[in-house]
Amino acid sequence: MPDTREKTLRLALELGRRVGSHKIVDDPDILASYAKDESDAEPRLPDVALRAECEADVLAALELAEKTDVPVTPRGAGTGKSGGAIAAEGGLVLDCTRLNRVVEVSREDLLAVVEPGVVTGQLQALLAGEGLFYPPDPNSLETCTIGGNVAHNAGGPRAFKYGVTRQYVLGLTLGLVGGARLEVGRRTVKGVAGYDLTALLVGSEGTLGAFTRVTLRLLRNPPVMATLLVRFRDEVTAGTAVSRIVAQGLVPRVLELMDGVVVDTLRRAGAGAIPDGTGALLLIEADGPTEADVDDQVTRLAAECESAGAIDVLMAKHAGERDRLWAARRVLSDAIKERARHKVAEDIAVPRSRAAELLMGLRVVGERHKVVVASYGHAGDGNFHVNVLWDDDGFDPKPCLGDIFRLALALKGTITGEHGVGLAKRAYLPWEQSGEVIALQKRLKVAFDPRGLMNPGKIWL
Amino acid sequence: MPDTREKTLRLALELGRRVGSHKIVDDPDILASYAKDESDAEPRLPDVALRAECEADVLAALELAEKTDVPVTPRGAGTGKSGGAIAAEGGLVLDCTRLNRVVEVSREDLLAVVEPGVVTGQLQALLAGEGLFYPPDPNSLETCTIGGNVAHNAGGPRAFKYGVTRQYVLGLTLGLVGGARLEVGRRTVKGVAGYDLTALLVGSEGTLGAFTRVTLRLLRNPPVMATLLVRFRDEVTAGTAVSRIVAQGLVPRVLELMDGVVVDTLRRAGAGAIPDGTGALLLIEADGPTEADVDDQVTRLAAECESAGAIDVLMAKHAGERDRLWAARRVLSDAIKERARHKVAEDIAVPRSRAAELLMGLRVVGERHKVVVASYGHAGDGNFHVNVLWDDDGFDPKPCLGDIFRLALALKGTITGEHGVGLAKRAYLPWEQSGEVIALQKRLKVAFDPRGLMNPGKIWL
Repeated sequence: MPDTREKTLRLALELGRRVGSHKIVDDPDILASYAKDESDAEPRLPDVALRAECEADVLAALELAEKTDVPVTPRGAGTGKSGGAIAAEGGLVLDCTRLNRVVEVSREDLLAVVEPGVVTGQLQALLAGEGLFYPPDPNSLETCTIGGNVAHNAGGPRAFKYGVTRQYVLGLTLGLVGGARLEVGRRTVKGVAGYDLTALLVGSEGTLGAFTRVTLRLLRNPPVMATLLVRFRDEVTAGTAVSRIVAQGLVPRVLELMDGVVVDTLRRAGAGAIPDGTGALLLIEADGPTEADVDDQVTRLAAECESAGAIDVLMAKHAGERDRLWAARRVLSDAIKERARHKVAEDIAVPRSRAAELLMGLRVVGERHKVVVASYGHAGDGNFHVNVLWDDDGFDPKPCLGDIFRLALALKGTITGEHGVGLAKRAYLPWEQSGEVIALQKRLKVAFDPRGLMNPGKIWL
Repeated sequence: MPDTREKTLRLALELGRRVGSHKIVDDPDILASYAKDESDAEPRLPDVALRAECEADVLAALELAEKTDVPVTPRGAGTGKSGGAIAAEGGLVLDCTRLNRVVEVSREDLLAVVEPGVVTGQLQALLAGEGLFYPPDPNSLETCTIGGNVAHNAGGPRAFKYGVTRQYVLGLTLGLVGGARLEVGRRTVKGVAGYDLTALLVGSEGTLGAFTRVTLRLLRNPPVMATLLVRFRDEVTAGTAVSRIVAQGLVPRVLELMDGVVVDTLRRAGAGAIPDGTGALLLIEADGPTEADVDDQVTRLAAECESAGAIDVLMAKHAGERDRLWAARRVLSDAIKERARHKVAEDIAVPRSRAAELLMGLRVVGERHKVVVASYGHAGDGNFHVNVLWDDDGFDPKPCLGDIFRLALALKGTITGEHGVGLAKRAYLPWEQSGEVIALQKRLKVAFDPRGLMNPGKIWL
């Protein structure tokens, strides 16, 4: 019985004949760039990669994968945080980054049709020029791709007002293992013909099929925006402000909380002068159709923060200030990493009202395991990025991570609010979901991929 | 081999022993009330019905259904428009209307947990008392149930601003044939652990499992509202106003268009004085946090209507006027029926920009088949209720309906924007979806229901 490496090389030969051998990558130095993503999951060199340039390339690879019994792992920019793009069982990596055409932008129908390799931030910039808006804003938006965003149902700060990727995917074209090409979903904003296959595929982590086109719902770009930076003496008062804002029905575009460690990190990362005595920050953005509307929102948001005990409320007066703040926010993950020799980051979410309990509980977990815990994130959605930092090379973080997941679940939350399960959280999925629910998902996978060749090894053990 | 009726009677005996025989219905006069819904699909008397009062009743029925090989059809208030609640192959009807407890309302987490038999409008009234808002508003909201809304992914006028049922279902508890109890989804607004089974179940028309609890995301009730009634000389100018409103990024709560025949019907139904020369109406509602915000929206909406050529813009000055308008709107479906001896209504949707083409195309279809076509609906979403009216008892509407579906699909739309496929549109699903897409859905059904006992005969032939 030939091993996966040998089978994949045979597939590569035939695939090269079909789609052009220049698209086949077998150079180990280049393959190394496909071996990991931005998670801590163990790297693995794929046997071969295909740099797909058109839909026919993808379908040919999927057809041959079935014939030759080779695993296929679709990959965008490799910015995932759960190991989803790592070829865990070897085989073929399907590099979709050159499938990067914007096929259509319709101002009238408020939709775009794009290939999966289009970079999210580049699409947003293009759309902004047309007065259009695609809201999802994962932290990696300058490099990550729409295909990866769809595969992981990406969120981001703006999800508080605008929701996550699922709310913006109207339809998908995809290939299944074996080479079948499916069109699911639609170009209309409403539609209930048959099961919602589109909704099932969003967030399926590349385990069901490989996308070749995505139809995205768009909004009009809200023309007016304001940014507030609100200082608090600690997380509890900041958390209270978040609860008050939510309870009042205020829906700012962004409602981000940063704890004391993060504030300090943000300051060092060059976010401008943040006075001493700041134990937590809220970064709030409001948007709307008119200056009057946004001014009114800002007044009400500031009032809730002040009632909750804010030290002060600063407004970013011009775009430069706003950009500097966001630039610092975007490098937070890396900046936090520099505070210690080791870092692991998790992305738990809890019901909105439990955010303060979560932050207090995380402090207890940190003390128990003698690590620094730095948290920031989408407080309005109860979704936090929890960074565990330590210097001792001999420290095993697993018991600490286990306590963090247990805490999130005890508060009726989830082990992953944004990043997905991938390889990184496979062992923890049964803590959240029953054996029957997991078994059902495996049966659904079989309905798409009976041979189990599509991104195997992900989501469950 | 015993037939379904005999098998169902045996099931009923055992089920009565388990859950209480007073919950078993076999009186043909009562069963007759389960034989149809609000569609034109052929009625069928079920063999037996269970009036479930708790989750255990549902699970017992599902367990015995598998043991005895009896089809199960879940049913709410029977207000569906596609035959989904009709026991097409006989067997057991699972009446969920007594599963009607509101288990929890959380103002802090902005969610409610309810049983599937809760009446949508009653839940909304209860929530309004708490300052909370569950947006979906199918026409039948005074009688339809949340379970049926979830099964069909119900929409309604407010979907233009607030989206459809899917956007509000965070989690589900359900039973599968065989009696397994599953909890899927979550209480958090974000979460990406595993496949989105919740999203797949919403809109699955009762063919995958029977819901026992639904966790709904809520909003704060927008405190200020205004209603506009805008008169136009014809549908084309009204359609232009809709396009202008959408293009400007204005998002009123409701943006409903009524054509000339419907305007006349609305007038007769007692909607108040509508002056002569009115060839089309837009019913627009705006909501928001403050009077100033809503006033601003109203000014901008009225300006777009006037630019498009509106005859005049009337404001409903007080709640009484508003209620009278909506009461008339809600009985439109019945009022239209009285205009002719026969009526069939369809619920197609097209991309927003194609609405005017659709309305013109429908006129051509009406002339070709010598029928009256009266259309109204959710113009902002491109989703119209198209009523075909005729008096000749010998007229076969099928060719006309076929032309209507062909028109919707030619405009890149869908055969059903709100009602679902059920029995009514099974024959037309292959016009919209490929054989491979339908085959995949059948495989997904098998993953939930390998024996094919859950609401059989629906969605596809």
